[in-house]
Amino acid sequence: MSQEPQRALADFRIRIQGHLTDYLAQQTQYLGDIGSELIPVAEAINSFLLDGGKRLRPLFAYAAYLAAGGSDDDHVIRAVASLELLQACALIHDDLMDASDTRRNKPSMHRHFENIHATDDLSGSASTYGASTAILLGDLALVWSDQMLHASGISDAALLRSLVLHDEMRIELMAGQFLDIHEQALTSTSVARSLKIARYKSGKYTIERPLHLGVHLAIADPQKRKIYLDIFSEFGLPLGEAFQLRDDLLGVFGDPTTTGKPAGDDLREGKRTVLMAMTHDRADARQEGVIARYFGESDLDSHGVDALRTVISDTGAREHVEDLIEKLTLTALDALGRDEIDASAHALLSELASIAIRRSL
Amino acid sequence: MSQEPQRALADFRIRIQGHLTDYLAQQTQYLGDIGSELIPVAEAINSFLLDGGKRLRPLFAYAAYLAAGGSDDDHVIRAVASLELLQACALIHDDLMDASDTRRNKPSMHRHFENIHATDDLSGSASTYGASTAILLGDLALVWSDQMLHASGISDAALLRSLVLHDEMRIELMAGQFLDIHEQALTSTSVARSLKIARYKSGKYTIERPLHLGVHLAIADPQKRKIYLDIFSEFGLPLGEAFQLRDDLLGVFGDPTTTGKPAGDDLREGKRTVLMAMTHDRADARQEGVIARYFGESDLDSHGVDALRTVISDTGAREHVEDLIEKLTLTALDALGRDEIDASAHALLSELASIAIRRSL
Repeated sequence: MSQEPQRALADFRIRIQGHLTDYLAQQTQYLGDIGSELIPVAEAINSFLLDGGKRLRPLFAYAAYLAAGGSDDDHVIRAVASLELLQACALIHDDLMDASDTRRNKPSMHRHFENIHATDDLSGSASTYGASTAILLGDLALVWSDQMLHASGISDAALLRSLVLHDEMRIELMAGQFLDIHEQALTSTSVARSLKIARYKSGKYTIERPLHLGVHLAIADPQKRKIYLDIFSEFGLPLGEAFQLRDDLLGVFGDPTTTGKPAGDDLREGKRTVLMAMTHDRADARQEGVIARYFGESDLDSHGVDALRTVISDTGAREHVEDLIEKLTLTALDALGRDEIDASAHALLSELASIAIRRSL
Repeated sequence: MSQEPQRALADFRIRIQGHLTDYLAQQTQYLGDIGSELIPVAEAINSFLLDGGKRLRPLFAYAAYLAAGGSDDDHVIRAVASLELLQACALIHDDLMDASDTRRNKPSMHRHFENIHATDDLSGSASTYGASTAILLGDLALVWSDQMLHASGISDAALLRSLVLHDEMRIELMAGQFLDIHEQALTSTSVARSLKIARYKSGKYTIERPLHLGVHLAIADPQKRKIYLDIFSEFGLPLGEAFQLRDDLLGVFGDPTTTGKPAGDDLREGKRTVLMAMTHDRADARQEGVIARYFGESDLDSHGVDALRTVISDTGAREHVEDLIEKLTLTALDALGRDEIDASAHALLSELASIAIRRSL
């Protein structure tokens, strides 16, 4: 792979970071003017957003914008950077729902405010304070993402086009999140159901819809837009599923120093992923016994993690998921062969695809 | 008071209800197409939204729209009806944060899904399932409110004007909610702090900002708009504070059949309202003892509720809050005396003011 797309992505990432920094500085000032009690709120979102993240969603959106004929424009960078605030909402609420203690090797938002409750010697329940603050901070991040998009400085026409798509993307995200929560509460597993959740929760939201947002920002003509929307569905949907499957594997086999989560965290949480559904489908009685004993144990130690990892590998589920990721990725990359995607857009999108599905984060 | 504004408000209320019904029917279909598991989600928001509520925020917005020269327009009704979905988000998340069991005499959203968990014999923790679902349904209601506004059919120019105001309103709401959560965790009380929370959490969000939204929907010219925005700040801010103070009184003295909450619910929750801050300021040692014993006791019985009510009345705090409501309301109504507000707008806004601060709901 040439260095060129990597350099371009690094440049975009810096500009995305710059816009997020500016926006959050303005908002911190705004909240501070309402009351100094709000400074820790602004600081927590600042630190959450500025210390980590690959900026995948803004990068996919911007790459699609350029591929669809948009010219380099800082206002568009600002518009797509808003997706990071939406993602912050999803992660803050997700960590609270999953009772996760860490995110990017730091305390998750509700734990952070639990700690503040203790440090500042506040009254009442620390865990209620942490949970309530995380609910509100997620809501605030969701509203901020809207405001950052609305005030990005893109043309009125581009903004109006993007609103429809943006709303639909967010509804799909919430629907996918609910399907996931509901799945965890069912007694049976199903590969088909887990794949559908992966599609809504991550596939569409993480890749296809950001790409579509970029297309809406670039193209006014509905017929021309339709051509690119279709190409990016063909590219984005399989790639999004591959991305979620990689995430499943990292949740079980990933290195904590790169995932930012404890080893085997998804096993401890009992997360009903496609990987686990495939493991169930292939497990013999003894292997089912191991799963029944360890999967979803909140105090699972490294011995239990290893036992489950062995079952997941021995059933062939791990390899099957790796194969599926490769197959989905090849299908995705095929879609970039269309004449409408020029060489530099092709290089940028391929590089992003390889970042999305790579084995370490 | 003439019957005319009451008839007009009743008509607007029916049209608001009609638009909410239509929108939710569309969204139920949309979610059902993603997965039948999502039908209970759509039904729960339907029932939450269509079975109750005075529609105060849409009515204030529409009254301001008409007062500022807008002509009767069903698209604008649809746009302002979206405020009910934003309010649904606030209430669903609020009930979860406060661990409230009931809303409008029915189970609150998290309790409703706790019950579904039990009825459907789902696995895992019912309370975690209820809490997670309530977080996601609040998020979904917030996104729906956006979508309903965006797709209301108002002109592009009106929509673009309204976005700025709409974003600011929602940020103020979340800031006010956090200040409220934080206040509950402090060991001291303060009338000044509680008044500020009342202003952000309810005053601006419930009355001033909906009025401003109506003005933005009606007026394109910034200078003319400014005149109406100022009038409606003069009217809306004191009225909003009066509204919150009435809410404080209802939370302590209100009749459960009209509040939809158990008697003395705010006392059981230990809610740090302006009313309670004033009670603290005026209480003698014996009365402080009663407060220390009963206030915030989660299993407070009717004896404890009566003891606290007696202290709140005996200190004079109740009467003082009633006086303050009257004073704030008179200040608000004064603002309607301006030439820019014609007789029919005056009648409509006065009627709404009296609904907002009336003693029973």
